[in-house]
Amino acid sequence: MKMLINVPETVVADALRGFAAAHPELTVDVENRIVVRRDAPVAGKVALVSGGGSGHEPLHAGFVGPGMLSAAAAGEVFTSPVPDQMVRAAAAVDSGAGVLFVVKNYTGDVLNFDMAAELAEDEGVQVAKVLVDDDVAVSDSLYTAGRRGTGATLFVEKIAGAAADEGAPLERVESIARRVNAASRSFGVALSACSTPAKGGPTFDLPPGELELGVGIHGEPGRERRPMMTAREIADVAVDAVLDDLDPSGPVMLLVNGMGGTPLLELYGFGAEVHRVLKERGVPVARTLVGNYVTSLDMAGASVTLCQADEELLRLWDAPVQTPALRWGR
Amino acid sequence: MKMLINVPETVVADALRGFAAAHPELTVDVENRIVVRRDAPVAGKVALVSGGGSGHEPLHAGFVGPGMLSAAAAGEVFTSPVPDQMVRAAAAVDSGAGVLFVVKNYTGDVLNFDMAAELAEDEGVQVAKVLVDDDVAVSDSLYTAGRRGTGATLFVEKIAGAAADEGAPLERVESIARRVNAASRSFGVALSACSTPAKGGPTFDLPPGELELGVGIHGEPGRERRPMMTAREIADVAVDAVLDDLDPSGPVMLLVNGMGGTPLLELYGFGAEVHRVLKERGVPVARTLVGNYVTSLDMAGASVTLCQADEELLRLWDAPVQTPALRWGR
Repeated sequence: MKMLINVPETVVADALRGFAAAHPELTVDVENRIVVRRDAPVAGKVALVSGGGSGHEPLHAGFVGPGMLSAAAAGEVFTSPVPDQMVRAAAAVDSGAGVLFVVKNYTGDVLNFDMAAELAEDEGVQVAKVLVDDDVAVSDSLYTAGRRGTGATLFVEKIAGAAADEGAPLERVESIARRVNAASRSFGVALSACSTPAKGGPTFDLPPGELELGVGIHGEPGRERRPMMTAREIADVAVDAVLDDLDPSGPVMLLVNGMGGTPLLELYGFGAEVHRVLKERGVPVARTLVGNYVTSLDMAGASVTLCQADEELLRLWDAPVQTPALRWGR
Repeated sequence: MKMLINVPETVVADALRGFAAAHPELTVDVENRIVVRRDAPVAGKVALVSGGGSGHEPLHAGFVGPGMLSAAAAGEVFTSPVPDQMVRAAAAVDSGAGVLFVVKNYTGDVLNFDMAAELAEDEGVQVAKVLVDDDVAVSDSLYTAGRRGTGATLFVEKIAGAAADEGAPLERVESIARRVNAASRSFGVALSACSTPAKGGPTFDLPPGELELGVGIHGEPGRERRPMMTAREIADVAVDAVLDDLDPSGPVMLLVNGMGGTPLLELYGFGAEVHRVLKERGVPVARTLVGNYVTSLDMAGASVTLCQADEELLRLWDAPVQTPALRWGR
């Protein structure tokens, strides 16, 4: 498997150096692998800190900036960052108004963010946490007790980030983040395995002519393998899996997320089928985002995330955001 | 080769339906395969129309919106749109101030845009054209007499779009577009072939362990094949190929463009190496953009585009833009 890298050992540091060069508006600590808003700490405002294994770019560093994350910590590929990174990030962004940790539900991340919260509180930083666990595919998985955290992370970070930006206190930012997670569900499909730099090849075996329904963002097994399906059929399965678990009483926000290796041409075509199913199921779509946001290196495939909307969540979603990967307004 | 599609015949139409659903701020004519700014024609302003084969998304439809293109026409995969599409697009966006056609230098595109210009002028639309031919890899190629048009298209569309947005007359928008093209050079590298839906598999054969230096955005042959190289070595070759042909007297704008199948993690790492070479060569970088902007379906690889900057070009680059794929300011 050919990769555009130097050596596997320096992939994350190299990417952070490139990120720093491309985004002078952010502060990148390559040694400690944290990316911070240049204007942090922002007086009187709650700060949001997230992070996780690398290989899911633009998540999370690409979501650092006004209106979204205050800082992100990058782990090795598919490996949680360590508590020290999270504590440093929290200390760098805390204005005294407290910090919300946004944690995807993977065992390593949960343990490390828990430890980081304790350490940060010892240093006088008030910390709240929200656990993202939106993936309906499986109830437990490799690396996860309970549901995995995937596409909803983007909704949580954007919407809670907007609330913090407006000056909401920590308790309120935390409750909005929890509300977004509770209102969100995801389901992913892999057409190919992903290849990690360390392994130098596919991390699992997916035969030609088969796809994996309910795959995780590290290629963890999903619900089942089936002979290859059309975009129409995949959209039916993915949306119905989500709607089996979420019964939206009103409009939803929709993320049609590419896993990294699927061309945008295909992703938009898949998005058309997702819209078609939602219409057939009577679910109105208030906002749509199509693109590669929560990726799995070069994996081909896509995921669908729905977040039940209400007026407040839509207002916060529409609020200005200025990050490398998501920007609008202002 | 598994693809997230229904049938190859409907890939472009399906993508446009998905694009329409995701971007209600644009007008999408799925039947005629044109995407138009909703507020077009904008009174008194020059309009920009581009287009080309599909498979290079977000180019061009993803660059339609205030501050960039007024309309884009989508052809079949890797096939020029037909003159009728371009004429319709021109008619839809012309305010009376005239239309600039932005044409990538491929034989089909050039012929069709030429014919479209004649037809549009017969209908009373004043048309100017700019040919983008920035790819230094080869002097002629499959489908091209002269150099191919690749990454510089983004700079031309953004900067000329900003000039039009400011109210510059057609002659001036055209001359700025030509200036940007003349100031830009690109060089691309493929680590894997791309697969078209019609073919259902790779369009050319690139052995494991080899890469193609100077590849075109349809997988056309470049300068040579070599055993696989590191990101550092590839950056040296790509930047030096560009600088052999462009001797910037001041700062440049840099596009580190993914071909579609290369993870963002790798692309940023490659970007770090590109910055390193440029520093070694004494070329300051004023602006950097890293991402998948001018793609070749699922091809793994990247291209480097440099555009020699001056104060005016930087000001126009920084001007507000509101498109699906590029947005900042305002």
